[in-house]
Amino acid sequence: MRHLEGAYALIFKSRHYPNELIACKRGSPLLLGVKELNDDVCNGSAFHDAKFLSKNGNPKELFLSSDANAIIEHTKKVLVIEDGEVVHLKEGGVSILKFNNDKGRNGDSLSARPASVQRALSILEMEVEQINKGKYKHYMQKEIHEQPESLTTTMRGRLLRGGSCKAKTVLLGGLKDHLKTIRRSRRIVFIGCGTSYNAALAARPILEELSGVPVTMEIASDLLDRQGPIYREDTAVFVSQSGETADTLLALEYTLENGALCVGITNTVGSVIARNTHCGVHINAGCEIGVASTKAYTSQIVVMAMLALAIGGDTISKQERREAIIDGLFDLPNKIREVLKLDQEMKDLAKLLIAEQSLLVFGRGYNYATALEGALKVKEVALMHSEGILAGEMKHGPLALVDENLPIVVIATHDACFSKQQSVIQQLHARKGRLIVMCSKGDAASVCPGGGCRVIEVPQVEDCLQPVVNIVPFQLLAYHLTVLRGYNVDQPRNLAKSVTTQ
Amino acid sequence: MRHLEGAYALIFKSRHYPNELIACKRGSPLLLGVKELNDDVCNGSAFHDAKFLSKNGNPKELFLSSDANAIIEHTKKVLVIEDGEVVHLKEGGVSILKFNNDKGRNGDSLSARPASVQRALSILEMEVEQINKGKYKHYMQKEIHEQPESLTTTMRGRLLRGGSCKAKTVLLGGLKDHLKTIRRSRRIVFIGCGTSYNAALAARPILEELSGVPVTMEIASDLLDRQGPIYREDTAVFVSQSGETADTLLALEYTLENGALCVGITNTVGSVIARNTHCGVHINAGCEIGVASTKAYTSQIVVMAMLALAIGGDTISKQERREAIIDGLFDLPNKIREVLKLDQEMKDLAKLLIAEQSLLVFGRGYNYATALEGALKVKEVALMHSEGILAGEMKHGPLALVDENLPIVVIATHDACFSKQQSVIQQLHARKGRLIVMCSKGDAASVCPGGGCRVIEVPQVEDCLQPVVNIVPFQLLAYHLTVLRGYNVDQPRNLAKSVTTQ
Repeated sequence: MRHLEGAYALIFKSRHYPNELIACKRGSPLLLGVKELNDDVCNGSAFHDAKFLSKNGNPKELFLSSDANAIIEHTKKVLVIEDGEVVHLKEGGVSILKFNNDKGRNGDSLSARPASVQRALSILEMEVEQINKGKYKHYMQKEIHEQPESLTTTMRGRLLRGGSCKAKTVLLGGLKDHLKTIRRSRRIVFIGCGTSYNAALAARPILEELSGVPVTMEIASDLLDRQGPIYREDTAVFVSQSGETADTLLALEYTLENGALCVGITNTVGSVIARNTHCGVHINAGCEIGVASTKAYTSQIVVMAMLALAIGGDTISKQERREAIIDGLFDLPNKIREVLKLDQEMKDLAKLLIAEQSLLVFGRGYNYATALEGALKVKEVALMHSEGILAGEMKHGPLALVDENLPIVVIATHDACFSKQQSVIQQLHARKGRLIVMCSKGDAASVCPGGGCRVIEVPQVEDCLQPVVNIVPFQLLAYHLTVLRGYNVDQPRNLAKSVTTQ
Repeated sequence: MRHLEGAYALIFKSRHYPNELIACKRGSPLLLGVKELNDDVCNGSAFHDAKFLSKNGNPKELFLSSDANAIIEHTKKVLVIEDGEVVHLKEGGVSILKFNNDKGRNGDSLSARPASVQRALSILEMEVEQINKGKYKHYMQKEIHEQPESLTTTMRGRLLRGGSCKAKTVLLGGLKDHLKTIRRSRRIVFIGCGTSYNAALAARPILEELSGVPVTMEIASDLLDRQGPIYREDTAVFVSQSGETADTLLALEYTLENGALCVGITNTVGSVIARNTHCGVHINAGCEIGVASTKAYTSQIVVMAMLALAIGGDTISKQERREAIIDGLFDLPNKIREVLKLDQEMKDLAKLLIAEQSLLVFGRGYNYATALEGALKVKEVALMHSEGILAGEMKHGPLALVDENLPIVVIATHDACFSKQQSVIQQLHARKGRLIVMCSKGDAASVCPGGGCRVIEVPQVEDCLQPVVNIVPFQLLAYHLTVLRGYNVDQPRNLAKSVTTQ
């Protein structure tokens, strides 16, 4: 361990030491799960006392895992291994040692010999149901369909309807002491990777509109590669479902060194990003198990929309706009229920696209992020080369790819960019593009005057919340495409749920 | 014309008026070329006098075009049509009318009748050789191969070698009165579309490093769609080869309204962006005719690197770095000559890839832009679905696509990110990815230890100038792929050279 660099969690096994395991970690998470086989009998006895672990007493099963989700179906009793500790499993007993170079515990003050560690077990605050698939075949499917509930949980207690004379407002407890500082920032810098980056991109326009503060987007690894300038006057917002994403974490360290105010937006209470930021908001979307993020994405956008409302403050000129957004948020779970009814339609579309090699997704404005995220979903689970493209860049290259064969999804729900998207559709149509148009309910005729393109009609919501609705059909499409193509939906090839290494 | 909205240039022809043409324009450019058929005889006589145009005297040919390049092979004499003018060609004569609603010229002060306009012809400052292909088969090929010369022209007179006791510096005449203001900016905002955006992205890290000012990237259409915040304390840099790109132009208007300092970087003297910005730099790359931008891209990066040096000022701590960059700039044309020798190698690679549907290009740091631009070149001319990907995002989705079949180019030339790219290569290799690695000369063994991947070795230059070298093999690859696939290199399907409409 003294020689290793970087983050790791390791388990060693040797033919020379049968029935023994050694585990250690630094940076990456590692849990030891303990299941007593006569659990019912001695329950309540002394399991908080870690000593029983070291004795080969009651028969027990032991589990080592980097993630609580893998253990919860066996036991809720875990021991969180800390950096520098060495776990030794031998003949049913467990001992934990720690190298303590500063000060020996055993009177031998200058030795580097390991000291034995005694620690109490923790109980996971999690129910097996949370990680059960219930009536669904896959976690991804379950997580797509539980979005009305996960969004409700995300907003619970944070939206205030106001009385007859009180305005509707947003209350984000974790941020309220820092709002003034954030409003006075020179820039707000969103930092994230993958889907979390896309969620921040979706929320960027409304944050700019309500706060007037310029918002810069940074992919965490790019900020680190460039060592981009970050100053004390900046507010940096770190977005990560797991709260453990390696690049985002390193970007956080870099940003803290540079003195900026750091805000965390994660789904995991107690994660490193949640602990090491100055303040933050939990998205409360519930445990997400499918590797492709779905419900965390929509909850992230909703949290950042609430963040925009909170930072925006109480200017009268924008009060009407803010109230419309708050009303939209209240109604959002219903709209998601409505858009989930497209399930069969997206399955039919998936059947049509099953043999395709490529897919383009065009979006702009609020839905530029939807194009990127929709394409990412299809790419990561259905293993189809899909690309999200800013519709405004169409004529600067992508238009050359357009012919009768390549399927193209154009997002053209109703907002300020609608007429520009209509023009994009006309031009793609003129090049005989194979179009699938996503539009607001009732707009089918105006996006596709002559017929000839497939239309996906989604319920319309306040423009800045539209990305939350619009992503759902893409999630369903990616899900069905994957199942139809016979791939593993919940564990896509080559990918891990949380990217805890660079 | 009174009823039309937006930008246009129109020519009308009617069966009811044979031998007549009417042309008019607003926003978009329109030129009338005049070729006297007995040009040699009466040359020098009175062609500056526009009156001869109206007479059906000497036999002449007339040309209407939106671009001087289309006319230059016929004549250098042109008349630049202005907004609101109507050109009437009839029986060999030309008359130009202008609707003047404010004040009639013919004594009839309240009428809206058109007034006749007299204007002198201009002479195009351009040689036919500039638009000749010379020994090359296509403009794109010619423009790729003339990059050592175009870069020399770009730098001419702008780099000062300094004497024995004088430091090496950069002199950009068009900017020198504004450097102080730019240095004090809250942000520098790069605004562009397509290839010009990519060039700005390539120059971003060095500008951040030398100036310490945060640089924000904006795709012009996205800034407009979002109506993103721009303030007086910002410096906005507009990058456009033609200087007429519609979205960039509209973004310029928007930025001027918001009071920011506007800097133009164009290849076209007298273009709208060159005229309407507060200051700027011409890239002097010479006329570019191939629709896919090649030499303009490399000249844009070099100009922006010089911009970074100029803004960076004369701090002692960075003097060594600045001088290394200036030395690198002086030597750059030689390095480009060297990398152009890869022509045959890239043709061989193109033969291998000819039947592929997809291509991924991974880059990071200085060469994130190279990945985007390399993929864009292949996409726009070879009509292959290629996508540029930030290598740091690999594990957040793109890795799922990797298998034995999909070709992947990884840019791993030597710089601060080299070890991260080595790790990316190892991970792609572990997934049996079909790798093509671009590395610095002599690094082949360290990027591809076991062999098994194809290596492109390019000369190494100062890290921030490496994108100028690295893009050349991609340009060659895109060119050869297109020719081998039998497509039109200089006029790719569906695309125009300058995108003058939204």
